[in-house]
Amino acid sequence: MPAKGVLLAETADVVIAGGGVIGTAIAWRAAAAGLDVLLVDPGRGDAASLVAAGMLAPASEALFGEGELLRLNLLAVRRFGSFAAELEEAAGHPVGVRREGTLAIAYDPGDYVALMRLTAFRRSAGLDAEELDSRACRKLEPFLAPDVHGGVLFAGDWSVDNRRYAAALGEAAQAAKVRVIRDQVLQVNVRAGQARGVRLVEGGDVGSARVVVAAGCWSGSVGGLPQALRGVVRPVKGQLLRLRHPASMPPALTHTIRATVRGTDIYLVPRAGGELIVGATQEERGPDQSVTAGAVHDLLHDAMSVLPVTSELILAETCAGLRPGTPDNGPIVGACGPAGLLLATGHYRNGILMSPVTADAIAAMLTGGPPAPEWEPFTPQRFTTRGRSR
Amino acid sequence: MPAKGVLLAETADVVIAGGGVIGTAIAWRAAAAGLDVLLVDPGRGDAASLVAAGMLAPASEALFGEGELLRLNLLAVRRFGSFAAELEEAAGHPVGVRREGTLAIAYDPGDYVALMRLTAFRRSAGLDAEELDSRACRKLEPFLAPDVHGGVLFAGDWSVDNRRYAAALGEAAQAAKVRVIRDQVLQVNVRAGQARGVRLVEGGDVGSARVVVAAGCWSGSVGGLPQALRGVVRPVKGQLLRLRHPASMPPALTHTIRATVRGTDIYLVPRAGGELIVGATQEERGPDQSVTAGAVHDLLHDAMSVLPVTSELILAETCAGLRPGTPDNGPIVGACGPAGLLLATGHYRNGILMSPVTADAIAAMLTGGPPAPEWEPFTPQRFTTRGRSR
Repeated sequence: MPAKGVLLAETADVVIAGGGVIGTAIAWRAAAAGLDVLLVDPGRGDAASLVAAGMLAPASEALFGEGELLRLNLLAVRRFGSFAAELEEAAGHPVGVRREGTLAIAYDPGDYVALMRLTAFRRSAGLDAEELDSRACRKLEPFLAPDVHGGVLFAGDWSVDNRRYAAALGEAAQAAKVRVIRDQVLQVNVRAGQARGVRLVEGGDVGSARVVVAAGCWSGSVGGLPQALRGVVRPVKGQLLRLRHPASMPPALTHTIRATVRGTDIYLVPRAGGELIVGATQEERGPDQSVTAGAVHDLLHDAMSVLPVTSELILAETCAGLRPGTPDNGPIVGACGPAGLLLATGHYRNGILMSPVTADAIAAMLTGGPPAPEWEPFTPQRFTTRGRSR
Repeated sequence: MPAKGVLLAETADVVIAGGGVIGTAIAWRAAAAGLDVLLVDPGRGDAASLVAAGMLAPASEALFGEGELLRLNLLAVRRFGSFAAELEEAAGHPVGVRREGTLAIAYDPGDYVALMRLTAFRRSAGLDAEELDSRACRKLEPFLAPDVHGGVLFAGDWSVDNRRYAAALGEAAQAAKVRVIRDQVLQVNVRAGQARGVRLVEGGDVGSARVVVAAGCWSGSVGGLPQALRGVVRPVKGQLLRLRHPASMPPALTHTIRATVRGTDIYLVPRAGGELIVGATQEERGPDQSVTAGAVHDLLHDAMSVLPVTSELILAETCAGLRPGTPDNGPIVGACGPAGLLLATGHYRNGILMSPVTADAIAAMLTGGPPAPEWEPFTPQRFTTRGRSR
């Protein structure tokens, strides 16, 4: 890997800006398809992918009015299993997919009314959902608080260890001969309506007829993108906690728990290795990544309300990430602006889940295939030509 | 500094086991008195000194039945100012002594009754204490919660930045030619009733006619001490939080706040640099130094109860330390066992506060002076000859 500050005159079949799970998954699949791939990432270790809980949970996350996004997420979770299997083989280690399902919990009667309303909507969208009373919830998860009002089991909602998954993608990409430059893309170079590569922040150019911008919430700051896309992706701050079981303690959970505690949403995601992820806030604070006392308090308080034994766990890490949010909560995937320029960003809360299908879609576009129909609602054009009307 | 594993055949006038604030303050004062001092410390960075809040607060901490300890603590706080001034000169930087005083706060009427009882006792011991109603408390500290019941100002209770103070002691000791070995004392070598130096864990001996054991809660595990002292010092776990103000925010406090929130004690100690320390638990858990979700929640919850703006602060660090507790909560300072062996340990919650007077006392003993009378109740002999009857 060239050192920072070295003037580059590299070329590649495709340059990818951004080494989170989206950019790295694309790099791996494009390289596997025979392309010479160069990935540019500053390596700050602050990718939203590393702060995520890794929920693969389209059913228990489905909201009113997001039907097209739900359809895409359902395709994404169906694709995840085979993609992860291939990835584990390429990387040589498991990525921690858990298939026990997700239990949505309502803490009090008001929370239960809201959960039932959402469950009716999710069933009308064809999703499986099994209603459980408080007793049945505690039969599935004995450490739940006795005063939990009730819940719904979404058996098809999984999770993955986001950090193992991100590491495996990096290893698979490396094994597939993806080259990595530790720098940042300043702008896409364009000549005569055609992308010609990128200019790097530390200096130097990479020549390439195809450029993929997958820089998460920073995607809008890459020069050379259509003006209308500048402010479309915004950072949505999320704080979460990584807890660990003390040596002597049995696992507190086997299912992912999504709970509503007096109107506030929280999730608890168990890992095979004894970790328990608790998240997350959603804050509109610009690029601020500080961990605040109030957020940590509230997350712990709500987690202890539904799972009192949380108090005995070790607080191993507190962290904050910046999700790439969009006006309609949907991703932005496809060609835009000059020929050869592709966007793969705006995955908001579903970057891990959507990384396989996004990599498939972009790899297909890079090798000349037609765009899959499920992506039609999520092209960049919805912001550049139709306005923001969805 | 010799590397670990090198066989040593060093000699010194005095060897000190333990490089927390007690051991390092002794090393500095002994070297300043002309002795050739060798300090042995494993350098794990887990000294209780580094987890402390640095309160110099004998009045607001005085408890029923601890009169001799209170007298010693009052001498300690009076000595602290001149000691810190000399230290700042030796180290070349401030150690962050704050003299604004300590405000004891009662959150609810029950807490207030308890505070008034303690205040009556403290006054009967000759301490200054100014009663303040809720309004007057908030005049001193405008960010306090409006529903705080009342408080008492202890104007003579200070604080110091424990980490700057510990760092300055290390620098002053180095400037005074104290030598440091990164290792651990396995045992005190004794021949014919006289200390002859120490054996190190990594191998090798240091020859010395005087040995000071200042290894905090680990002091009892040093070989060669009288059997009766083995279990006398125990680790008392304390968890605390280091918060930071965001750039745009004015300081939340100027006084140290000691609050009782529905029967639970908490303190908030402001630093000049914009830090706010929140502590602390007191847990009998042996040598466990893990940070637990429950403790962090409870500290944040109580801090936010008395100072709601705490929620806006950045949670910079969570940590746990092991205080050296003793059966009567008093320190263990003085000669014991073989000639030339001195103990300086068991300072429990007052290690920072007592480090100057302890260093004075031990340096005097090392240079042949008589023990000061205020130390008479705190000799090791109260555990070896009189039993544990105090």
